[in-house]
Amino acid sequence: MDIVQTTLARINPVSPELLAQAQARLDNKTKPPGSLGRLEEFARRVVAISGSVQPDLSKKVIFTFAGDHGIVEEGVSLYPKEVTAQMVFNFLRGGAGVNVLARHSGAEVRVVDVGVDHDFEGCAGLIHRKVARGTQNFATGPAMTREETLAALKVGIDLADQCKSEGVGLVGTGEMGIANTSPSSAMIAAISGLTVRELTHRGTGINDAALENKIRVIEQGLALNRPDPADPLDVLTKVGGLEIAAIAGLVLGCAANSIPVVIDGFISTAGALIASELHPNVRDYIFVAHQSVEIGHRFMLERIGARPILDLDFRLGEGTGAALAMGLIDAGVKVLKEMATFDEAGVSR
Amino acid sequence: MDIVQTTLARINPVSPELLAQAQARLDNKTKPPGSLGRLEEFARRVVAISGSVQPDLSKKVIFTFAGDHGIVEEGVSLYPKEVTAQMVFNFLRGGAGVNVLARHSGAEVRVVDVGVDHDFEGCAGLIHRKVARGTQNFATGPAMTREETLAALKVGIDLADQCKSEGVGLVGTGEMGIANTSPSSAMIAAISGLTVRELTHRGTGINDAALENKIRVIEQGLALNRPDPADPLDVLTKVGGLEIAAIAGLVLGCAANSIPVVIDGFISTAGALIASELHPNVRDYIFVAHQSVEIGHRFMLERIGARPILDLDFRLGEGTGAALAMGLIDAGVKVLKEMATFDEAGVSR
Repeated sequence: MDIVQTTLARINPVSPELLAQAQARLDNKTKPPGSLGRLEEFARRVVAISGSVQPDLSKKVIFTFAGDHGIVEEGVSLYPKEVTAQMVFNFLRGGAGVNVLARHSGAEVRVVDVGVDHDFEGCAGLIHRKVARGTQNFATGPAMTREETLAALKVGIDLADQCKSEGVGLVGTGEMGIANTSPSSAMIAAISGLTVRELTHRGTGINDAALENKIRVIEQGLALNRPDPADPLDVLTKVGGLEIAAIAGLVLGCAANSIPVVIDGFISTAGALIASELHPNVRDYIFVAHQSVEIGHRFMLERIGARPILDLDFRLGEGTGAALAMGLIDAGVKVLKEMATFDEAGVSR
Repeated sequence: MDIVQTTLARINPVSPELLAQAQARLDNKTKPPGSLGRLEEFARRVVAISGSVQPDLSKKVIFTFAGDHGIVEEGVSLYPKEVTAQMVFNFLRGGAGVNVLARHSGAEVRVVDVGVDHDFEGCAGLIHRKVARGTQNFATGPAMTREETLAALKVGIDLADQCKSEGVGLVGTGEMGIANTSPSSAMIAAISGLTVRELTHRGTGINDAALENKIRVIEQGLALNRPDPADPLDVLTKVGGLEIAAIAGLVLGCAANSIPVVIDGFISTAGALIASELHPNVRDYIFVAHQSVEIGHRFMLERIGARPILDLDFRLGEGTGAALAMGLIDAGVKVLKEMATFDEAGVSR
C-alpha cells in the first residue's frame, strides 16, 4: 500500500454517541436549548472528532503551504511568480494577513515550502519539504507526475501526524501560490462536470480580458490532459498543484489522527475536496472557514456538503479565513466547558 | 430641550475623508486590494467613527440591560418571569453565555438593572439604574409612561458618556428580559406597517399554539395603544420596554460620543432601530453583530440599512452575538495596524 492507502485505512467515522452526549451537556447550560446555534454544532463536533468530552484547543496551528505554478506563464494572474517567495519571507517575519489574524485567534502559523521556485536553503523558521520547483504548465501537459503528487500528499500527512504527537487540538489550512485559483477551478470543473466559465473568477483581481484568457487556458488544459473524474489523484496530478496536494494530505492526516481541521478558502477547499472524494468520512472532520468570493467555491462546498462558518467577502487565502473561524470554534468549545448549568446557577428551566 | 434632544444635537456625520484615508492605508498592505473584504470595512469605519487613524480597541465593554415585561402575563414566553432576575445573578457570577463569549473576545460585561421586578439592593457588581419594576402589560394599556421611557433612555446615554471618559474603544449591546421578543416584534410592526404574523417568531422556543397566542396578544396591544409610527418614542413607550429604551439610549450616546457600537440580536436591534429613526446619522456608528433566527430581525436590518457580520443561528441575546462580532471588528483594526506594507515587506505590487 502507498502512503495514501495507508492513511485512508486509518480514517474512522466519528462517534454518534459522543455527538449526542455533548449536545445533552449543552442542553443543561443556562440558555434555551439550541439557542447558541452553530457554536453548539462546533462544540459537539469537536467532542466527537477528538473523542474527548473536554477538548483541549489550547494548541492551534495553521499550515501555510507555498508552491508555484507553471500556468502562470499564460498570464492568468495579476502578480508575477516572484511574489510567492516574497510572501514566504513576509509570513516568516509575521507581517502578512494570516500572521495578524492567527495571532488574534491564538494560533501558530507554520510555513511550508512544498514547491516554490526559489532556493530557501538555510532559511530559518521555514519547514523545508520542497517536492519540486513548482508545477509544469497544465495548459501544455500534466502539472505533476503521480510521484510528485504522492510526495506532496505525504508532506501534509506527516505534518498531521506530528500535530497528533504534539497535542495540537485544532489545525487550519492555508496556501500561497501565485496563479493557484486556476488549478483550483480546473479541479472542480473536472470533478463536477460543470463548465469552466461557471467555476472561474478573478482571483487576485484580473480584468475582463484576463478572465476570458484564464477561462480559455483552463479549458485547454482540461481538454489536453483529460483528468479522470473518478480518480481524484489523477485530477490532482494533471491540473492541480503541490500546495493543493499537501493540503489534501493534511486533511487526510487530520482525519486519520482524529484532529478537527479548518479549511480556509477556494484553494484550500480544492485540497479538501480531493480528500473528501478519496474517503467519505473525511467530511466529518472538516470545518469550512468561510464563503469565498471566488464563484467556484460554492460548488465545491455543495459537493463536500459543508456550510461555511463566515461570510466576510474574503479572497486572500494564506489561512486568513481559517484563522478567524478557528477562533469561533474555540468559542464554541468554551461554551461547553465554561457555561454554568441550570442547577449550578439556580435558574428555573 | 430634554435629554434626547440634547443628545441628538451632539451626533455628527462620520468623516468621508477618514474613510478614504484608512482605505488607502489598507491598500498599501501586502494583499490584493479589498481582499480582506469586510475586515477592511470594519477597520475604515472604526477609523472614521473614532476619528483616530490608530484606533485603540483595548477596552471593549458589553452592556447587558435587564428588564421585566408585563406582557409575560399573557403566556407569550416559555420561561417564568423569575428567570430575568436569576439570569442577572448568573451574569454577575460569570456563568452565562455572554460572560464566556465576552471573555473569549477580551470584552468586559457590565450588567445594568434598568427594570427588573426584583429587589437587588446591596447587590455588588450590578449597575443599579432601576426605572421601574418592569413594564405594564401592553395588551391592556401602554407599556410605559413617557417619563419612564426618557429615564431609561438616559441610563444608556449616561453609560455611553462614561465610556467616553474611560477611553472605551468599542461598545456592545445586550439584554435580558423574559418575554422581550414580544415588544420587539410589536415595535417593528408599528414602525414598518408589516403584519404581526410576518414579524413574530418563537422566541426561546414556544410551540405552534403559543405562537398563535403571541401573535394575537401583540395584535391586540397594537390595536389598543395605536402607537404613532412617525414618533419613535411613542412606539417605544406604548409597546416597548425599559431595557430596549436603555439600548436605544446607549446607541444614541455612542453616536454622540464617536464610539462604534455593536448591536446584538433581535431585541437589541429594536433599540437600535428607535435610535436610527430618531437621527439618520446614527446608522453610521452601528455594527450589526449577527443575523438572528427571529424572523422579524431582517426587516429591522432592512430598515436600518445594515448587513449583519455573523450568521450563526443564534437566538439567545444577552450580548452573545455582539461579543463574537466585537472580536472580528478588533481583527479588522489589527489588519490596519499590524500588517506589513508592500515596501516594508519587499513584495512586488
